[in-house]
Amino acid sequence: MTGPSPLTRRHDEGTAVRLARSAAAVGEGSMLRTADFDDWLESRRRAHHFRVERIAFADLDGWSFQPGTGNLGHHSGRFFTVEGLSVHTDTGPYRHWQQPIIKQPEVGILGILAKEFDGVLHFLMQAKMEPGNRNLLQLSPTVQATRSNYTKVHRGADVKYLDHFTTSGRGRVLADVLQSEHGAWFFRKANRNMLVETDEDVPLDEDFCWLTLGQIGELLRRDNVVNMDARTVLACAPVSTGEPDALLSDTALHSWFTARRSEPDVRAERIPLDQVRDWVRGEWSIDHAKGRYFRVVAVAVEAGNREVRGWSQPLFEPCGTGTTAFVTRRLGGVPHLLVHAKLEGGFLDRIELAPTVQYTASNHADRTGEDRPPFLDLVLSADPARVRYDALHSEEGGRFLNAESRYLFVDADESQAPLDAPPGYAWVTPGQLRWLGGHSHYVNVQARTLLSLLNTGAVRL
Amino acid sequence: MTGPSPLTRRHDEGTAVRLARSAAAVGEGSMLRTADFDDWLESRRRAHHFRVERIAFADLDGWSFQPGTGNLGHHSGRFFTVEGLSVHTDTGPYRHWQQPIIKQPEVGILGILAKEFDGVLHFLMQAKMEPGNRNLLQLSPTVQATRSNYTKVHRGADVKYLDHFTTSGRGRVLADVLQSEHGAWFFRKANRNMLVETDEDVPLDEDFCWLTLGQIGELLRRDNVVNMDARTVLACAPVSTGEPDALLSDTALHSWFTARRSEPDVRAERIPLDQVRDWVRGEWSIDHAKGRYFRVVAVAVEAGNREVRGWSQPLFEPCGTGTTAFVTRRLGGVPHLLVHAKLEGGFLDRIELAPTVQYTASNHADRTGEDRPPFLDLVLSADPARVRYDALHSEEGGRFLNAESRYLFVDADESQAPLDAPPGYAWVTPGQLRWLGGHSHYVNVQARTLLSLLNTGAVRL
Repeated sequence: MTGPSPLTRRHDEGTAVRLARSAAAVGEGSMLRTADFDDWLESRRRAHHFRVERIAFADLDGWSFQPGTGNLGHHSGRFFTVEGLSVHTDTGPYRHWQQPIIKQPEVGILGILAKEFDGVLHFLMQAKMEPGNRNLLQLSPTVQATRSNYTKVHRGADVKYLDHFTTSGRGRVLADVLQSEHGAWFFRKANRNMLVETDEDVPLDEDFCWLTLGQIGELLRRDNVVNMDARTVLACAPVSTGEPDALLSDTALHSWFTARRSEPDVRAERIPLDQVRDWVRGEWSIDHAKGRYFRVVAVAVEAGNREVRGWSQPLFEPCGTGTTAFVTRRLGGVPHLLVHAKLEGGFLDRIELAPTVQYTASNHADRTGEDRPPFLDLVLSADPARVRYDALHSEEGGRFLNAESRYLFVDADESQAPLDAPPGYAWVTPGQLRWLGGHSHYVNVQARTLLSLLNTGAVRL
Repeated sequence: MTGPSPLTRRHDEGTAVRLARSAAAVGEGSMLRTADFDDWLESRRRAHHFRVERIAFADLDGWSFQPGTGNLGHHSGRFFTVEGLSVHTDTGPYRHWQQPIIKQPEVGILGILAKEFDGVLHFLMQAKMEPGNRNLLQLSPTVQATRSNYTKVHRGADVKYLDHFTTSGRGRVLADVLQSEHGAWFFRKANRNMLVETDEDVPLDEDFCWLTLGQIGELLRRDNVVNMDARTVLACAPVSTGEPDALLSDTALHSWFTARRSEPDVRAERIPLDQVRDWVRGEWSIDHAKGRYFRVVAVAVEAGNREVRGWSQPLFEPCGTGTTAFVTRRLGGVPHLLVHAKLEGGFLDRIELAPTVQYTASNHADRTGEDRPPFLDLVLSADPARVRYDALHSEEGGRFLNAESRYLFVDADESQAPLDAPPGYAWVTPGQLRWLGGHSHYVNVQARTLLSLLNTGAVRL
């Protein structure tokens, strides 16, 4: 060979060390003290005009129910549609159901830009209004763009900082993986989750701030500050895995997952929204006949810091607050999480790993005894001393209205959650969940929110 | 903590060492010398009555074209159906096409049982007849079973050795991963690829033999001895990855793949077989109007060593022999393979990593100059000194008739295959391909055949 080797190391251990250093940096980063964050966010809130109003479907601008199918779509054919889904399966308590579902085939980018200041990685976070968030303004990734956004279907302004994520070789990619979103509400949606480090000078827009991973962890201990899109990207951060030991070897865990995914016969087919049984379309909403699960509604938005100045759109509004929790145990001195191999009708590949508990309790009020969702009562009635974390977070505020879940970590013992996990459940370490979360189709979006809490130090097990 | 730790090591380095020892064992294993293999296979051929005959569709037993759709299916509703597929995409030389496609939603098991004899891992291989193989009898996995097989839809005999793969905890799982099959011919098909080690006594059925990985490698140097199902399982063997360095870091490679998968807008929808444009149904076959790609035919089978004694079924018969090759280079002293991020209409998730070349040359005879499939002519006209491997192998003989491809490894230089790979191609090491092949939806079945040649030592780069 002549010349220098063109090769590089396949694994860079340095990134995990630098992420750990950033997670340890709490209280103040180089740019904004955590104590000053509220003032900064409040200044962003005052700087912009935000207003969201419920409207009747007939008052939607550019959206209509299409003749023949009743599917709700935009006249451009872009953004997303609300269609029907019919699911048949041969497993679980519900074997057949129909429901409205959001179809959004485009792959968007959720990207957080990283840069070292004073030797510590900081992350560029955006104060972004989304119509579905109860408090409207939350901390979001640097870039949160559907393809419609950046190909300018809605003729808005450029997406700031987008080039860092779309120009190959411009920065150093720390993570880049397609991840699913809510399989109960989206039909096979995936977004690209990206962490990109730059050493360029980055002009700071006034709606953005640089925070360490530890500072973001501090904010994640509060209700409804860090949005879902930021949480799922943070879940993909390649922080140190550490543990060499676990209850199951990685191969045994993967085999358990493969077996679960191979089991169910699932037929999930889109149907016309008009033909969805048990759902009723009114002037202002589409509701389940028993008032359960969610409703489809419409809103008009006036805003000053989005790419466009005003718009209207449909949103899904869940009925009730979700409860989403990992039951945890320390096994052989190593923390373990109880994952659930969960079927959701909108998943591309049937099954993903979900938290131990992922239910909206009010939807299951009439299920008693053996029929109660497993571990739900354990979480709802946990002794406070066993609750390591409990906060409210919002799901994607661009598609869901007031979609809040309580996210918890709850310690359990052998009598509550045995080492020999029930069918469909398995004990995994945080490192194992991270390993699988480095690939697509394994870890669902709710489990990724809980993983982001571990990655940022918001929760320590 | 009281009692012993319940934990185990997440990674077992010993397995890779033991697989390497098995790959080094050539010429003779503990059970059957490679030199005696032909006699053994011939004895199996003589022991059974095999006969395959082409028949008209009207003579199929239990199969018919369904009214309304023209889909070809079995009256039980099981096995598989031949339906239509319509693909629209915004990338590549072909943007829209329609074709017949096999829909087989059940997940089957392809499993090879392993056991140490005299300290060396041996693999239990089966001499199995399949109607589509030109030579009928090939070496297949221990178990090759659709769910219809083992739930007895066709009321046949038990599948031998199946319990080793379906009874959790009975053996030690070395690999267990869902893998796609031919995306050009199957609609979203996946099979479970399993390697399970046992230390039980295993009664040896006369159609089975124990071979080392190295012996299987010797047989893989011959044409049409080791079937596709065996090759894809062997590709998943966790043999040592070795190389710490590569042209792209694992993260950069994964990011490149994520970008490729995110790019194309692909709409692949099943349509009634009757409505597929450019295909013509006759009494004996369904053909493309230009006689290209493949035809759908029917066969009657008489056999003595299958789970049932005789049956008839449709098969896909490709027109022409495929050319499937990795172009290779040694970069910085480390072997690299040029992978192609390839869209196939039947993939569950749009794109998988394919060999550099995967074409049937006769389908592209009228494409000249810039329109020629990339690297095809480089492979077809390669100096023999640059060809490290060249053998014919059959695709799945249970679904495809005389589906043969030449599989090659061809060395190239900078002028033929530059370090700066063209769009859609990337240089990866064998270890990186194995890493991704340890998960679903990354490495297509043709690339896995080539990987099995590396894993067994049939090819050394």
